[in-house]
Amino acid sequence: MPAIGIDLGGTKVQGVLVDAGEVIGDAKVPTPAGGVDEVVAAIGDCVDRLGGTDKVAGVGIGAPGVVDAATGTVVMAPNLPGFAEPVPLAALLADRLDGMRVAVDNDVNVSALAEHRLGAGRGSSNLLGVWVGTGVGGGLVLDGRLRRGPGGAAGEIGHVGVTSGGRRCGCGQDGHLEAYAGRAMMEQEARRRAAAGTPTLLVELAGGKRMKSSIFAKALEAGDGVAVELLDEAVAALGMALASATALVDLELIVVGGGLAEKLGAGFVGRIEQAVRSRLLVPSSPLRVVPASLGDLTGALGAALLVEEPAAA
Amino acid sequence: MPAIGIDLGGTKVQGVLVDAGEVIGDAKVPTPAGGVDEVVAAIGDCVDRLGGTDKVAGVGIGAPGVVDAATGTVVMAPNLPGFAEPVPLAALLADRLDGMRVAVDNDVNVSALAEHRLGAGRGSSNLLGVWVGTGVGGGLVLDGRLRRGPGGAAGEIGHVGVTSGGRRCGCGQDGHLEAYAGRAMMEQEARRRAAAGTPTLLVELAGGKRMKSSIFAKALEAGDGVAVELLDEAVAALGMALASATALVDLELIVVGGGLAEKLGAGFVGRIEQAVRSRLLVPSSPLRVVPASLGDLTGALGAALLVEEPAAA
Repeated sequence: MPAIGIDLGGTKVQGVLVDAGEVIGDAKVPTPAGGVDEVVAAIGDCVDRLGGTDKVAGVGIGAPGVVDAATGTVVMAPNLPGFAEPVPLAALLADRLDGMRVAVDNDVNVSALAEHRLGAGRGSSNLLGVWVGTGVGGGLVLDGRLRRGPGGAAGEIGHVGVTSGGRRCGCGQDGHLEAYAGRAMMEQEARRRAAAGTPTLLVELAGGKRMKSSIFAKALEAGDGVAVELLDEAVAALGMALASATALVDLELIVVGGGLAEKLGAGFVGRIEQAVRSRLLVPSSPLRVVPASLGDLTGALGAALLVEEPAAA
Repeated sequence: MPAIGIDLGGTKVQGVLVDAGEVIGDAKVPTPAGGVDEVVAAIGDCVDRLGGTDKVAGVGIGAPGVVDAATGTVVMAPNLPGFAEPVPLAALLADRLDGMRVAVDNDVNVSALAEHRLGAGRGSSNLLGVWVGTGVGGGLVLDGRLRRGPGGAAGEIGHVGVTSGGRRCGCGQDGHLEAYAGRAMMEQEARRRAAAGTPTLLVELAGGKRMKSSIFAKALEAGDGVAVELLDEAVAALGMALASATALVDLELIVVGGGLAEKLGAGFVGRIEQAVRSRLLVPSSPLRVVPASLGDLTGALGAALLVEEPAAA
């Protein structure tokens, strides 16, 4: 029976209708800025555009921020207006959809689930999905099951430490992976270096606007010194953090996706694999590092998979 | 039905007879130096001293080094003569014990299992056992099950990175936790500092012999500068690595044991807890860090628990 998956983002609500792992319909609506009721209405609207709930097994939602999957509550999602406090999203949406079964999980977790079931992670039961974009997010699949953890906080590879006393992370702590490999923190560092007297194409191209992933790709291609250094540091930090993750939980596969990784392409993922492998405790480990393969609809696809995934650990 | 647990160490084979979580008998024999056959015979001897296998459900063994629990094979145990190459220990011992069911796992894994079921970790389903001794070992229990991983290599908290480019670890990599918090590496560093011109009670007390945990305790008590610094660095490294582990898998509890931790006492564990909590991504996390509680028989007790633990993930 088909399922509906919703990727609830800060700018858009992306929905898909999925049957037997195939996308058979998709729809999107803008994410409204007016708070919880409007967001629930927009998701309901998106479900209607996909044909409604008459012939589907359930609706899954991937939401940003901290999610308690067991109760379907978005605990805190700073990027969604009205979601600074806990929102019982599954219950609210079930009301709107006449009691339909609704499951909610973190957007990165559902993306890891999608890559595991349908993408680059097929056939691997122990994998980490790493999303290198504005920040660095992660979703962990252990023994074929999404690892949520007792507080729903598992998978936070971006906040694994790589250098005690190192660069400050967005979360306030020092030396986390995200401080070196997240686009936003790399932008901050590039602007700091430019202000300190090292000119860089990164700042020239971005001007006062956001330093998009495509700008990093361009500056690298042009051999810009700061861009090259920042990328080297990002790759080294990814190598350290992903080797740590492998030492701790023993992984077979690491799937790398996200905006920055997509723009930098397979070469970037290859460099990460080299960096991780050079740091493995068991050098003969069969661990592989590969690019994510499902593209833009990953989150929505993974959300649809939630319908069949047990919510509690 | 009772079970027999064997802690196979480099110097002794410690056995216990366990019924309903209680030790009802114990026996030990020296670990022979003559290779695999002698070790199997010594374990058999220990089992005989515990009353044999007539009225027990099975025999569990905790072995040092790398163990493939699914097949009961000790893949590599550098501290056991004859165990540099893979040894099918479960099969060999089952032969000696007339087909008795035999399970084998890593000694640190079984210790974590023991603390989870019978010790400081009772009631927690998501915990990491950390053994701070000559090295730093770890055993991970997730959702109430021992996490082994596809290569049997999970739980290696000692080889989680804390400082890229930092102190060299015994494994050859740089900046691992064990390089800062393992007794052997701390000894190396103390001798390095003494040789470089900073005298320390650590070297005075140890002389040419092993710098035992009790020597660290004495030097600390006397306020020795190098000992204080090395301990501060060990605590900071433990804080970083354990916060990383918590970010990745979401833990409720960390149980700290091992020779050095025992000698330094509850104050050491309290300092580790402070260091971890100051680095948590979710400061309201209910994570606790507590001392291990089962003492010398932990490994043997945990080995007995293997008899009822499913071997495959």
